[in-house]
Amino acid sequence: MADRESQVGPVSRRAVLGAAGAGLVVGGAVGAFGGYSASDAAEAGDDLTVPFRGDRQAGIVTAAQDRLHFASFDVITDSRDDLIDMLKRWTTAAERMTRGQETVDDGALGLGDYTPPADTGEALGLSPAHLTLTIGFGPGLFGPSLADPNRRDRFGIASRKPAALADLPAFAAEKIEPSRSYGDICIQACADDPQVAVHAIRNLARMGVGVVSVRWSQLGFGRTSATTRNQDTPRNMFGFKDGTANIRAEDTGTLDEHVWVAASDNPPAAQWMTGGTYLVARRIRMDIEPWDRANLLEQENIIGRTKGEGAPLGQTGEFDDPDFQITSGGAPLIPKTSHVRLAHPDQNNGVQILRRGYNFTDGSDGFGHLDAGLFFIAFNRDSFKQFVPMQHQLSRKDAMTEYLIPNASALFAVPPGLKDGEWWGQHLFT
Amino acid sequence: MADRESQVGPVSRRAVLGAAGAGLVVGGAVGAFGGYSASDAAEAGDDLTVPFRGDRQAGIVTAAQDRLHFASFDVITDSRDDLIDMLKRWTTAAERMTRGQETVDDGALGLGDYTPPADTGEALGLSPAHLTLTIGFGPGLFGPSLADPNRRDRFGIASRKPAALADLPAFAAEKIEPSRSYGDICIQACADDPQVAVHAIRNLARMGVGVVSVRWSQLGFGRTSATTRNQDTPRNMFGFKDGTANIRAEDTGTLDEHVWVAASDNPPAAQWMTGGTYLVARRIRMDIEPWDRANLLEQENIIGRTKGEGAPLGQTGEFDDPDFQITSGGAPLIPKTSHVRLAHPDQNNGVQILRRGYNFTDGSDGFGHLDAGLFFIAFNRDSFKQFVPMQHQLSRKDAMTEYLIPNASALFAVPPGLKDGEWWGQHLFT
Repeated sequence: MADRESQVGPVSRRAVLGAAGAGLVVGGAVGAFGGYSASDAAEAGDDLTVPFRGDRQAGIVTAAQDRLHFASFDVITDSRDDLIDMLKRWTTAAERMTRGQETVDDGALGLGDYTPPADTGEALGLSPAHLTLTIGFGPGLFGPSLADPNRRDRFGIASRKPAALADLPAFAAEKIEPSRSYGDICIQACADDPQVAVHAIRNLARMGVGVVSVRWSQLGFGRTSATTRNQDTPRNMFGFKDGTANIRAEDTGTLDEHVWVAASDNPPAAQWMTGGTYLVARRIRMDIEPWDRANLLEQENIIGRTKGEGAPLGQTGEFDDPDFQITSGGAPLIPKTSHVRLAHPDQNNGVQILRRGYNFTDGSDGFGHLDAGLFFIAFNRDSFKQFVPMQHQLSRKDAMTEYLIPNASALFAVPPGLKDGEWWGQHLFT
Repeated sequence: MADRESQVGPVSRRAVLGAAGAGLVVGGAVGAFGGYSASDAAEAGDDLTVPFRGDRQAGIVTAAQDRLHFASFDVITDSRDDLIDMLKRWTTAAERMTRGQETVDDGALGLGDYTPPADTGEALGLSPAHLTLTIGFGPGLFGPSLADPNRRDRFGIASRKPAALADLPAFAAEKIEPSRSYGDICIQACADDPQVAVHAIRNLARMGVGVVSVRWSQLGFGRTSATTRNQDTPRNMFGFKDGTANIRAEDTGTLDEHVWVAASDNPPAAQWMTGGTYLVARRIRMDIEPWDRANLLEQENIIGRTKGEGAPLGQTGEFDDPDFQITSGGAPLIPKTSHVRLAHPDQNNGVQILRRGYNFTDGSDGFGHLDAGLFFIAFNRDSFKQFVPMQHQLSRKDAMTEYLIPNASALFAVPPGLKDGEWWGQHLFT
């Protein structure tokens, strides 16, 4: 093992301790990089960690990591104290895991033979892999919602619910499955190594036993967004570049206008959301087999961009501005039913959203097709002024709709980042 | 884009061509590395490709890549000619994709506006990512099987079926779901980048329309095996190192004895399997929540190894040999019901198997638990002399069984590698 430990690339602070047999094992500085690689999201020379605390939660404008595990939880207790206690324990564990440490300070293996290991162990030896853990609170936490219309205000926080936190409306042509929609709390785990993201969700779920229960979870194998200027634009399962015109971390003015909640957005009781944002999650199954039989012209007319370069039709470069005035044979070259036109700010009263979704493939559907698509995640300042009107327009007019089956939907309020010593949800519950 | 193309790390030969608008686009040498990273499976300085042709199929003793997409297909035609034609087209496409090229030689976007793009496109700009594509043939291809007990010998190959290709028997404590078991043809796609593996399976499925239909498919997010001496031992979802004692590519004598089919194994009609092997696939759901509540001693006694280091109980190093004679308080220190003892060659008449499985997480199960576990893949020379007796022993005696729910099962005959000009299945069908 000495030889293996000397293969250190980026140093992990995860303890890899194994006393033969038994005994008290304490985590420490003995780190080993056990394999797996970091993605291009890594800046050369960094330590593969993303700071957990700050003005904003990490995982929003953080350079999009390659892999996702997203989980939505039902809160299954009526005890406010138990919920707060769990949120405090989650905060400690989450911060530790983003540093590449085991969940709690008892070392990788816990307090000895006769207790369960403190950490489930499958991330031992892995790097922090740019793990970010982002928490959001769903409408059901505050009272009745689509998740449970009969729910009471169990935690005495109904008055603190922001107006922009509500169930999303029904959209045209969707087939929402409640068993993988909604939820009281979400955790978005993003990392360059999927095992690090899965480990984080699993351990938070484990720590929440008796307080929360996993309602649904979703893995994403590949990012479909660039969220910083130095990231390349990835491709979605339609084979097109996705998110060319996305808001980037460097666009601070645009973020303030379209992503971050301002103090003026809410009354005093909901000021806990100031500096936060709202997360829209939509599982969008793609009918990839019919799509693959569509000819290139149809595909490009549906998207409004070329498939190879990703340039707006009529232009040559991916980042050229689309020109919606160009006509060809009397009709707009970028069709009126194209995605790029219908989603463009000019067609949506100037609103923009920050997209941060992932490609998924969940096996096959029993009918000979892959169950694949886009797990859409977007952040916006007020979904009912941004995502919802945009989605109404898209779902009714977008030619792409023919190839999409949105089958899960959720909205969560994502508070701002934590200062030193603060815990997840502190300003909501205190 | 010029700036982005100059960010070339390992050079991809994938064409990233995008003529504005339309026109004939021909693939070529314009390569760009669009992002995503290669795993530690990469040897520094290599071109991220694994040779497609050779004495053996790639993806068996190839250094285990980080990610998996495995697909099982039903053959839905009775036409031998159509099946052979597809296998030839598959071979060409598979070889191209392992080089990082689009599926066929028509360029990334096909033959123009009025045909569907030749390649689905989502891997454009990605590296070859050490992609390997490994084909296997299931018992149902030759006639009746559990997949379809009424099937005829549609392709006139029943006489060529090797004795070792048959449905696996039922084992204790399994809950096999036929809809994600069995199959006529399997493709194992392994790569460092999951998008490359998913792209390969998707495109083969697409090329097979009318000939094959996806019966089931499975993603694996993290390897649970090391198959070469320079790979670290990864951890499974129980948090333990998995496959410490695995056969490695360097163990050529052991491979000949336990993995590769010899000429003497089969009569003349089944010599097409000489130099091949048999692939066992088992989806093993792990009851991770109860496992996580088991104390460290119980976990280590079930595995027979320490959780941190992975050393056999009573030893200090991962690669120390287990000593089954050591006792503690009159009982064996490595319990009789431990996995390491029951799976050890000494307990199985000396037989060994080559393991090459992957961790999976497929969302949640609707009862608040993660649907996670091990997608077990093993290669052996004769499953009925190796895997089957070992699994009978494990399923009846292994204490770990309490935490496992095997719910899918399949066996495939994996022919040897291809010489120049040969196609998948050639020696079976000609």
